[in-house]
Order: sequence, then structure tokens, then C-alpha cells
Amino acid sequence: MVDPAKQPGAITRREIQQEPDAIRESLYQHDHFAAIAKKIVEREPKIIIITGSGTSYHAANAAMYFLHVFGKTDCYSIRPSEFHYFIRPILDAKTVVIAISQSGESGDTIKAADIANEKGALVIPIVNEPESTLARKYPDTVILSKAGKEVSVLATKTYTCQLAIVASIALEYGLTSKKLSKEDYKSRVRELNMIPDRIEVMRETVQTNARKFAKYLKFLDRAFVLGAGPDIATAMEGALKLAEGSRIIAQGYSANEFLHGPITLADRMNLVITLIPPVVDEQEKDFIKIIQRVQQQGASVLAITSRIEDLPETVDFRIDIPKCLMEFNPLLSIVPLQYLVLEIAIEKGLDPDKPEWLTKVAHI
Amino acid sequence: MVDPAKQPGAITRREIQQEPDAIRESLYQHDHFAAIAKKIVEREPKIIIITGSGTSYHAANAAMYFLHVFGKTDCYSIRPSEFHYFIRPILDAKTVVIAISQSGESGDTIKAADIANEKGALVIPIVNEPESTLARKYPDTVILSKAGKEVSVLATKTYTCQLAIVASIALEYGLTSKKLSKEDYKSRVRELNMIPDRIEVMRETVQTNARKFAKYLKFLDRAFVLGAGPDIATAMEGALKLAEGSRIIAQGYSANEFLHGPITLADRMNLVITLIPPVVDEQEKDFIKIIQRVQQQGASVLAITSRIEDLPETVDFRIDIPKCLMEFNPLLSIVPLQYLVLEIAIEKGLDPDKPEWLTKVAHI
Repeated sequence: MVDPAKQPGAITRREIQQEPDAIRESLYQHDHFAAIAKKIVEREPKIIIITGSGTSYHAANAAMYFLHVFGKTDCYSIRPSEFHYFIRPILDAKTVVIAISQSGESGDTIKAADIANEKGALVIPIVNEPESTLARKYPDTVILSKAGKEVSVLATKTYTCQLAIVASIALEYGLTSKKLSKEDYKSRVRELNMIPDRIEVMRETVQTNARKFAKYLKFLDRAFVLGAGPDIATAMEGALKLAEGSRIIAQGYSANEFLHGPITLADRMNLVITLIPPVVDEQEKDFIKIIQRVQQQGASVLAITSRIEDLPETVDFRIDIPKCLMEFNPLLSIVPLQYLVLEIAIEKGLDPDKPEWLTKVAHI
Repeated sequence: MVDPAKQPGAITRREIQQEPDAIRESLYQHDHFAAIAKKIVEREPKIIIITGSGTSYHAANAAMYFLHVFGKTDCYSIRPSEFHYFIRPILDAKTVVIAISQSGESGDTIKAADIANEKGALVIPIVNEPESTLARKYPDTVILSKAGKEVSVLATKTYTCQLAIVASIALEYGLTSKKLSKEDYKSRVRELNMIPDRIEVMRETVQTNARKFAKYLKFLDRAFVLGAGPDIATAMEGALKLAEGSRIIAQGYSANEFLHGPITLADRMNLVITLIPPVVDEQEKDFIKIIQRVQQQGASVLAITSRIEDLPETVDFRIDIPKCLMEFNPLLSIVPLQYLVLEIAIEKGLDPDKPEWLTKVAHI
């Protein structure tokens, strides 16, 4: 029998398994988050820019959502490769730049942070490596994601930790700046702290389903991932994981945006993965319509959902996740995608621990 | 002989041909642009949000660039489907929302404008249809793109007109708010006004090349389009056109961001289209490295460039465009992609005037 620790994807699998504990470790840093939030509020920022590449860019998008919703503040995410072009002209001491990089060594992210720092902006790095360049350059403001060493080229546990951290920072910022009531703050902190348990609760079923579906999805080489609100981050991150880990040409979209052109390609060659929001709102009704429409075009549908009712029975694959606050759904909804990528890769004969043409820190 | 006006793609071709005149017509509205810019400056906006779907979203991205560079102001683009989730919490009378929609009937865009208007924000629609919902709702601030009726489902001339308009608004805003010197303003206005002539100059060669390359590229069904700075908009718009018009699974990327994962898929099945910036900067050196790397992985490369020197001789396809200011390159660089999509579609036996599963105004 092959040693399980030496099987393809063993490292990635172990790191996905570590997510609940990694998130817990990250969330323990409450006092530090509050101190950082205080620094941001004291700066009275006109704008908060969040930057990061690849997976960290997706965390930056979630951060943008959290800061809008919990912090009611002007902020946006941008890729560090575009920082020079777009952000340099508006930088000053009233700008706050949150720079996310798992390794703390991403060249473009370091460069963006340095440009911001030179112009007097407040720079807050979020990294997983305490001895990295970004951590050493900004020792007073650095936040560590506490996921423990990440060996797999595919970022998994560091992504969910980044999400937990940016959500915390936004909550602390909301409380400190009085944009969020004490009651709302408390109830949301409580919900956020329940996320690791919820991941543990769903894990067994999610893994079983991922393994089962992978047997069919190994034939797949095209997919779309659709989300709304905070799950835009999940859609983009899920698509990137499918590309990196299982060599599926995948694209993440804001669900309704998908109708503006890309939907033309959703034919029988494609799987459309839909991240159904946990609450019934207008957007969710649109999801049902989108599912029906792409199935009519011949595409298959995989739904990741915490809602059983209303979902068309025609859905080809379904993975259930526990219900949580709409805001925190990205911390749950990415997990089935991570397992799915892992299992599809193995079915395809790939080693997700060592994706072709990729390295842990991107360079040319 | 088949009547050329009845051949597949005849409508799209005619509308691409109309671009120089359509841009000229759009740019004639200088006084109106100045008046709108004055309204924005008077509002003393804390933030300018630019929204639009599909092609209009790509124009919104270019607008974000122009407003950063010429207006030195805090602004960002967001899809209207995400407006409710991300922007609603920060809306107030100090917000300016630029809402771009060719038809003026895009449901999500109208909804976003209305949410903004209810919260007291200044709403500026940019539409091509004077009798549309958005134009009628905001008669005091509406800007018309003057491209003339667009019949093809593929947006072409309305996109370049949207670019010319948002560039003008940003220039006027820069001048009025004194963020841009009079000299810089003048030289840029002059350059912008030369764009239609430059399109006319390159058109013949571009068409010849597009027709020639399409004979080989009809085999293609996967592509990446890479740009930097303002040409991020071109990369995204080019990818959308390839998907809609020629059913190629295409994705637009910020060039350096491409290294953070997606590059793994750039193998012999893929064409990588690179939009080389007109100026030699650090970023351009990266382009050369990216070209070499994806070729090493087996991908083919098509370069759209105004620079002859330095480009590796190994590049498989090349389309030359005239040199212009870096800022305005998107107005030129999209044109070869529009022709390419048209010719590839025809070679594939598709009718680009009537893409499958698409309508001019997106709905479910």
C-alpha cells in the first residue's frame, strides 16, 4: 500500500485539513487587530487601498467588501502590478494601503507597499511568513496570518486565514470608527468565531461529495464559477484553483455580469459552478434563472449552497454547506472548491502539490 | 456574387469602420464635457464610482485610469451587479457615480444609478441612446456617446466612443480642479483628437493582417489577452469580444498578474495576445520575458504593438499600430482585436452580427 503521506496531493490535503485550526490561531490576535484598526482610524484615511496578487488579490476583494459593509469606508482592491499606473497619482499621508502576500516576498506587492510608504501612506502588510521582506520592512503594522508554514504551491489555508483577518480588521475598524454599532459588532464577531466549527461540521460530507463528483469531472476542461457580493472573491479564487490545481480553464464572474457576454460560451462543454448566497434576496432569484438558462444551453451545473428549497431539481451536482451570515459565506464556500480541485487533479493523474509551470512565489 | 452588405459580420464590419467618425462626433461635445466636469468639481466628491456591465465595465476601468492619472482623484470601477453589495453602504451626497450603458437600458446599471440618486449622489450616465431610460431619468447630466445607432450585438464603435468620452471628462476634471496643468491638458487634448486619424492610418494594414491570421486562428479555441495600465481595459474587452464573437474561451489579465497562477494553462493549445505598451518601461521588459516564457511552454504569441525594436523575433503573429501617448493606447489597441474577432468568426463559419445566446441588452 502506498504511504498516504506520499500520495499526490497529500500536502495540499493536509493543509486544507488544517484550515479550522489555522483560522482559530489567526483569530486569537484580537488585541493586535484592534490596535491596527486604531492606527487606521487615527490616520483618518480618505481611502483604503487593498492590494495583493493571485489568491491574495481575491482576499483583497473580500477585504473591500468587509470594509464597505462593516467599516462603511471608501476602499478598493487593485492588483499590485497595476499599482504604479493607477494608484501612484493619488497617494498621500491620508491613504492606507493593506498589502496582502502569503510569502511576504511577492515582488509587485513589495514594490507597491514601498511606493505607498515613500508617499507617506500607512502600510499594513498581511503575511504568513514572519521573517519575510514585507514583515521586516513594516514591523509596527504587520499582521501575521498564523496559518503555519504553507508548503503546497496551491494556497488554501493561508487564503481562509487572510479572509478571517481582513474580516476582523474591518469589524474592529467599524467599531473604533463608530460606523458599526456595538451590538452588530458583537454578533458578527461571534459568527466569525463559529466559522472553524462550521468547516469541521461540513468537512466529511464535502469530501465524500468531492471524491464522488471528481470521477465525472475528470473529463472536464472548462468551467465558470459564479458568485455574488462577498462570494465574488470565492468565484475568482475557485476559478484560479481549478486552473492551477486541476488544469481546468476556469473563469470567475459576478453572477449577473456573466449575462453580459460570457454566458454565450456556457454550452455542453462547460460546468457552471454557482455559489448560491445563504439569504433569499433578489440576487438569489437570478441565480435560479441563470441555472435554468445555462442548462438550456447544454451546460452542467454544480451548486454550492446552504439552501435546499427553491434550488431546481435539475442541478447536476450539489454540495451543501452550513448556513452562516451572508458576509462570512466566503470562508465556507471556498472549502468545497478546494477539495474538488484536489480530487479532480488526482483523478486526472496530476499532482496538485506540484502544479506544472508554477512556483510558490511567482516570478518570470 | 453575394451582396457584401448581406455577408456574415457585415453589420459589425460597418460599425468598426465607423469608429473614427464616431469618435470625432463624440469629441465635438467639448463644452458639455467641461460643464459636466464643473458639476463634478463643485460636488467636491470624496469618491467617484464608475459602473457599467460587459463592454461598459471595461470602459469604466479605463475611466478609472484616466481619472487617476489626469484627475488625481479617488475613484474606482465596479460592476453594477455588485453595486448593491459593495457601494450602497458608502453612498452619500459626496459621491459621484458615472453610469455607463450603451443602450441606457441595462437593468443592473439603472438600478445602481437609482440607488445612488436616492442617497443624494450625483449621477452621470453615459449612453448611446438619447431616448433611453437612463438618458430620460438624468437629463441634466447625461452624456451621449454619439456613435450613431449600434445594430450589431457586439459593441465596437460605442466602446471606443465611451473611451474618448471618459478620457475627455477626466481631462476636463483635471483642468477644472487644477490637478492638471494647462500645458499638460492642452497637449493631451491635442493627442486625443488625433486618435481618429491614427485609426484611419492603420486600418488597411490591420485588416489585411487580421484576415491573414484568421486563416490559422480559426483552429483556436483558447486565448489569453495581457495588458498593462490602461490596456487592462483592452485585455478584458478583447477577451470578451473573442468569447462573444468568435467563441474562443478568452481571459483578459494584467500582464504581471498572469504569472500568479493562470500562466500554468498557457500551453500549446493557447494563443497569448500581448498588448505591448507604447513606452519602454520596466513593465515592457516584463512583457518580453512573459512572451519568452509562454512560448517555452508551447503557447503561440500574437503581439499588438507600436514598437518594433526589442520584440522577440519568435513572436508568431504581430499587428502594428501607430505610436501614441501611453494613456490613449486603449483607443488604438482594441481596433485590431475587433477586426480579428470579426475575421476569425467568419473563418469559423459563425455570424458575428448574431452571436449565439446573446442579445443587445442582456437579460435572463
